[in-house]
Amino acid sequence: METQLDDLKFDAQGLIPAIIQDAATHQVLMMAWMNRDSLAKTIQTKKTHFFSRSRNKLWLKGETSGHVQHVKSIAMDCDQDVLLIGVEQVGAACHEGYYSCFFRELQPDNGWKTVAGRMVDPEKVYKKK
Amino acid sequence: METQLDDLKFDAQGLIPAIIQDAATHQVLMMAWMNRDSLAKTIQTKKTHFFSRSRNKLWLKGETSGHVQHVKSIAMDCDQDVLLIGVEQVGAACHEGYYSCFFRELQPDNGWKTVAGRMVDPEKVYKKK
Repeated sequence: METQLDDLKFDAQGLIPAIIQDAATHQVLMMAWMNRDSLAKTIQTKKTHFFSRSRNKLWLKGETSGHVQHVKSIAMDCDQDVLLIGVEQVGAACHEGYYSCFFRELQPDNGWKTVAGRMVDPEKVYKKK
Repeated sequence: METQLDDLKFDAQGLIPAIIQDAATHQVLMMAWMNRDSLAKTIQTKKTHFFSRSRNKLWLKGETSGHVQHVKSIAMDCDQDVLLIGVEQVGAACHEGYYSCFFRELQPDNGWKTVAGRMVDPEKVYKKK
């Protein structure tokens, strides 16, 4: 595994952006950051792991909610500094309960509007444990 | 336009990652960085403009190649620090001549493999001017 990770360009903080998309529909679900360890763990377990810059730690996506992402493909871009990962999403990708984190769109009148419906109630997913 | 740009969280360098996808098929084409000016210009002209960290300047995507991106939608994520922009891509998004910059995929044997065909010859697009 070492060799192909060496092909990637991690930034000064040792991170690389990872775009996550639904492998079947190509809908973009989220973007998060990976370091070398979280990517290695993602490849090894076939579940996405990210690096939290605010908490300064590796986390398994879905560790609290159960909404894990099963990895189907991993691509890199021409500059080898961005990843695109195709997944099968369990439940909702967004902690606000939407399938995709990109649920707000800019309207012609220049306001942001929620254009998707909530899939799950975040209160139920994160608080009633 | 000022108000809705204020809703976004630009990083310490004043930048925000922008994921570009084909508005019709949802294929992810590239990721690049925008600052406030390049996003304002993108909204105003309906053609994507980015901020080049290496050249420290704003650039119109396609300024050399003619391969511009006509903006169809702009979404932001839940944390308001990533953009997802749907476009109609003229020609190829990638400077290496592929429609998408994500043309290499990790294989089960752990090597990266080119999984797309070149759409245009980059020599013709960028050098014969």
